[in-house]
Amino acid sequence: MDNKLMLMIPGPTPVPESVLLAMAQHPIGHRSGDFGKIMAEVSEGLKWLHQTQNDVLILSASGTGAMEAGIINFLSPGDHVLVGCNGKFGDRWAALSQAYGLTVTKVSAEWGQPLNPDDFKAALEAEGQQPVKAVIVTHSETSTGVLNDVEAISHYLKAHPQVLTIVDAVTSLGAISVPVDEWGLDVVGSGSQKGYMMPPGLAFVAVSPKAWNAYKTATLPRFYFDLGKYRKDATKNSTPFTPPVNLFYALHRSLQLLKGEGLHSIFSRHQRLKTATRAAVQALGLPLFAPDDAASPAITAVAPHNVDAEQIRTVLKKRFDIAMAGGQDHLKGKIFRIGHLGFVSDRDILTAIAALEAALQELGYQGFSPGAGVAAAAGVISGSMKPGAN
Amino acid sequence: MDNKLMLMIPGPTPVPESVLLAMAQHPIGHRSGDFGKIMAEVSEGLKWLHQTQNDVLILSASGTGAMEAGIINFLSPGDHVLVGCNGKFGDRWAALSQAYGLTVTKVSAEWGQPLNPDDFKAALEAEGQQPVKAVIVTHSETSTGVLNDVEAISHYLKAHPQVLTIVDAVTSLGAISVPVDEWGLDVVGSGSQKGYMMPPGLAFVAVSPKAWNAYKTATLPRFYFDLGKYRKDATKNSTPFTPPVNLFYALHRSLQLLKGEGLHSIFSRHQRLKTATRAAVQALGLPLFAPDDAASPAITAVAPHNVDAEQIRTVLKKRFDIAMAGGQDHLKGKIFRIGHLGFVSDRDILTAIAALEAALQELGYQGFSPGAGVAAAAGVISGSMKPGAN
Repeated sequence: MDNKLMLMIPGPTPVPESVLLAMAQHPIGHRSGDFGKIMAEVSEGLKWLHQTQNDVLILSASGTGAMEAGIINFLSPGDHVLVGCNGKFGDRWAALSQAYGLTVTKVSAEWGQPLNPDDFKAALEAEGQQPVKAVIVTHSETSTGVLNDVEAISHYLKAHPQVLTIVDAVTSLGAISVPVDEWGLDVVGSGSQKGYMMPPGLAFVAVSPKAWNAYKTATLPRFYFDLGKYRKDATKNSTPFTPPVNLFYALHRSLQLLKGEGLHSIFSRHQRLKTATRAAVQALGLPLFAPDDAASPAITAVAPHNVDAEQIRTVLKKRFDIAMAGGQDHLKGKIFRIGHLGFVSDRDILTAIAALEAALQELGYQGFSPGAGVAAAAGVISGSMKPGAN
Repeated sequence: MDNKLMLMIPGPTPVPESVLLAMAQHPIGHRSGDFGKIMAEVSEGLKWLHQTQNDVLILSASGTGAMEAGIINFLSPGDHVLVGCNGKFGDRWAALSQAYGLTVTKVSAEWGQPLNPDDFKAALEAEGQQPVKAVIVTHSETSTGVLNDVEAISHYLKAHPQVLTIVDAVTSLGAISVPVDEWGLDVVGSGSQKGYMMPPGLAFVAVSPKAWNAYKTATLPRFYFDLGKYRKDATKNSTPFTPPVNLFYALHRSLQLLKGEGLHSIFSRHQRLKTATRAAVQALGLPLFAPDDAASPAITAVAPHNVDAEQIRTVLKKRFDIAMAGGQDHLKGKIFRIGHLGFVSDRDILTAIAALEAALQELGYQGFSPGAGVAAAAGVISGSMKPGAN
C-alpha cells in the first residue's frame, strides 16, 4: 500500500511529523543571527544528550564521516591503534584506520558475540609493542545487535591516560545511555538517522580536552573534517562550511522532543522495546543472534531455523509494508534485524510482532503457537506499567 | 516580519514549495528498491545538468566536501598542482591542497578580477619545474561575483593531456552552462544549495574516465570521500554510506523542475537576472565590483561609495526581510553581494532593486534618481520579452 511504510530498520528510523514539518521550512542564511540561535540551542541539546561538558561538533556527513573525523584529527601516520572488531562497523573502522596509514591491531570476537574487555586490557599491556595511541570501539554493533561493554573497556583505559578512547556510538546515542564524561570517552561519533529521531545527513563528534591536546600534534591530513575549524566556529555559533540548514531545523525540533521525554524515559523505553522484542522472538521459537547479556537496546538480530530470513522480510514488506533489515556480508540470508531505536513506541513492537507472526504463518512455519509472540511482548510491556516497575 | 524572509544570498538559495514538501516525506530505507529508483533517476538528471556522460557521484557533504573528494582521489603527496586564486574559494582550494601535502603553485589575480587564462598557459609551460598533475580552478567565484573563463583555460589544457582539470562549479552548476564533456573537464564539484534549487547537504562530483585512470595510482589517504566506493555502489543505484534520504527526495523533485524549464531557459534566465541587476546597480550610481566581461550570472557584488555596505544590508534585512550577503575576509564592509541563482525570477530582481532603492533613500544616499534602478532592471527584463530577444 503506498505511503504506508513502517520502518523497523536500524536507520533511517521513523521521524515524527513535527520534525518533518520543521525540516520543510524555507532555508535561512547560515551566517544569520537566526541560524546562530538555532546552532546555540542544538549545541546545548547535544551536550545534554551526550551527558558531557565536552564540545559536540556537527558535520554534514553520515556516521562514517563522524568516525573518520574522530580518528584522523587526533592521530599521525603509523600510530598504533587497537580496533574492536566483532561486526561490519568494527571492521569498517579498522579498514578506515588502515586507509590512513595507522598501524592496526584488531581485538576481535565472533560476529554476534561481544568484545571481551579483558582482551583490550591484554592488548594494551602487551610487552614489546609500539605504544598504543588510541582504542577504537563500537558501542552498539548495528550489524549484529550486539552491545559492547564500553564502560568496562573505558575502565581499563583509565590506567592508560596516554591512550585516547574513540567510540562509535552511531546506534547507541539517543537510545542507550552514553555518559561521555563519566566513562571518560575522548571521542564519540554518531549520526542523525538513529536515536536522534531525524533523517540522515548530520553527524556528531564529541571531543574531550585530552583529544584536543592530541589534535595539536596529530599530522594526518584533513580539511573538510578538520575539527579544529568546527570548534573555532562553534564558539561563534557558526560552522566552517555551509551547514544543511533544514536538517538543523529537524535536529532543533527532535532535541526538544527528546528533552521533553527525558533521558531516563528514553533509555528505559529502549530497554523495554528490546526486552519485549526478544521475549516475543523467543516465544516464536526463533533463535536470537546476540546473547542476553550483550543485547543492544537499539537492534535485535534474529537467526531463524526452518524458515528463510529473506522470505520473512519479503512477506513483511509486501503484505504489511514493514521494512526490517537483512544480514550484512557473510550474514546475508542468515539473519534479519529488527530496528527499535528512535521514534519507536511499545505499540510499534506489538505491531511488528503481530505482523511477524502473520508472516510466519503465511510461510508455513510451524514452530510456534499463534499469538505467543504478541502475548510475550505484551507481557513485558504491561509488566512495565505496574507500579514500581522499570 | 516573521516568516517573510527573502533570500538573495549566494546560498542557501530559495527553495520551491514542492521541493520542501518532497523533503518532508517520511524517510525510506536506503537499501530499498524504492530508494534505488530515486537514485537512478537523480543520477540521470545530474548527467543531464552536467551535460556529460561521465559519472556524477552524490555525497553527503557541503560543496567543500565535493572539492576535497575531487582533489584527494586523483593525486598523491607532493604532486604539483596549479590553483587559480582570485577570491576566497580559490584560496580555499590552495589551502586544502597544501593541507594534503600537494605542491601548490598559485595562479593569481586580484579579488574582483578574473584569472587570466594565459597565466595558466605560461604556468603549464614553465621550464625546469616539477610536471603539473592538475589545474584547480573556480568557475564562479562566489566571494567576488567574478566568472573565470574555464572554457579558455580548458582549451589550453587540451595540449597537456596528462594534466587533470578540476573545477569548482559550486555556484555555476544549474545557473551557468558547464558543458563538462565539451570542455573536457575531468572533475567538477558542486553543492546542492546553489543552482539546484534545494537546501544544503548534498555535494556532487563529476568524474571523467581520465580522472578514474589517475585514481588507480593516486595515494592520498581517503575513506569517507573515496569516490571509487561511490562509483561501485552507484552502478547498483546505491551509496556506500547512509545517504541523506530526504535530501534525495528534494533533489529528485528539483531536477524535475529544472528539466521542465530546460537548460537553455535556465541559463538565459540567469543571464537576464545578472544583466538586469547590473543595469539597476549602475543606474543607482553604485560601482560594480566585477567587470562586465567577467560577471557571474549567479552573484553580483557591489562596492558602494558614500554609503556603507553593511548599513545597506542591515536596512534591507530589518525593514524588508531581504537577506543579501556581505563581503568576506578583507572585503568585509567593502562590498555586498546579491545572489540571483537558483529559484529566482525576474520579479525577485524587481523586488530586490525596489527595496535597495528604498534602503538607499532611508540611509540618505543622494547618488541616484529614485526609481532609476527599477526602471533599468525593468528595461532589461521587458527587452527580453520582445520577439526574438533572449
